[in-house]
Amino acid sequence: MNLRLRSCAFSVALAALATALPAAAQFAKPEDAIEYRQSVMTVMGTHFGRLGAMVQGKVPFDAKAAQANANIVLVMSMLPFSAFGPGTDLGHDTKAKPDVWKDPAKFQAAGKDMQDQVVKLDAAAKTGNLDLIKAAFGDTAKTCKGCHDNFREK
Amino acid sequence: MNLRLRSCAFSVALAALATALPAAAQFAKPEDAIEYRQSVMTVMGTHFGRLGAMVQGKVPFDAKAAQANANIVLVMSMLPFSAFGPGTDLGHDTKAKPDVWKDPAKFQAAGKDMQDQVVKLDAAAKTGNLDLIKAAFGDTAKTCKGCHDNFREK
Repeated sequence: MNLRLRSCAFSVALAALATALPAAAQFAKPEDAIEYRQSVMTVMGTHFGRLGAMVQGKVPFDAKAAQANANIVLVMSMLPFSAFGPGTDLGHDTKAKPDVWKDPAKFQAAGKDMQDQVVKLDAAAKTGNLDLIKAAFGDTAKTCKGCHDNFREK
Repeated sequence: MNLRLRSCAFSVALAALATALPAAAQFAKPEDAIEYRQSVMTVMGTHFGRLGAMVQGKVPFDAKAAQANANIVLVMSMLPFSAFGPGTDLGHDTKAKPDVWKDPAKFQAAGKDMQDQVVKLDAAAKTGNLDLIKAAFGDTAKTCKGCHDNFREK
């Protein structure tokens, strides 16, 4: 299997996916949007955590599993930001801070930082080189923390 | 953009993804597995529901959005079944019935029915033909209902 082809084609499909998703998706109720974004974060965090376990040597490195986990993180990274629309600041135990809606440009920029790093993480995972994955994982984790510190209650 | 190439390459990437994911994934706690599979179902249901709204004429048909939603359903369809391991039958408000663990072969077969139909739904979405999407959506919805009727509390 040609990794370069796979990487390229997968990215093309994902780019099409991202542009086809509406910026402000329709949810029947604000709680639905909150539950949706929380669910996306749970799935993303689970697979990012599995990568982290390999990066930290807690489980043996498995290049195929690393690639699969990074792929899922990549797909998930595109989904949550459509679900922070007006009126979704309260309910369903949301930990989103008011600053998400007070400074949406800063919030969206923090989200884009994460998405950009996740693209690099996915590319690193496709190389199968653990050192590259470690570096990209660390850079990505910083963007998670940066956004969570500013926009999520502890 | 060549739809055939995209479809083929995306499927290749997904096939690799599915085989790289462990059959029984590691979760720190049973509750984590339950929350994970519930989250996957929430994301899958949201995007399947958006396809349904188009199929039922509740929102205008948008071929690109249909394709993006089907892609996400396809990725999600591969994730939940690793999270029904031993000891995950109770907790976190799970609606999974005991039959999931009493008759795992039947449960896995029901899951595979869904996955197979979702592959067809994704292929139909890539054609941009609403009639084909409607048919595949209906067939897929039957597999959702079939599994939920047997294995999920109402």
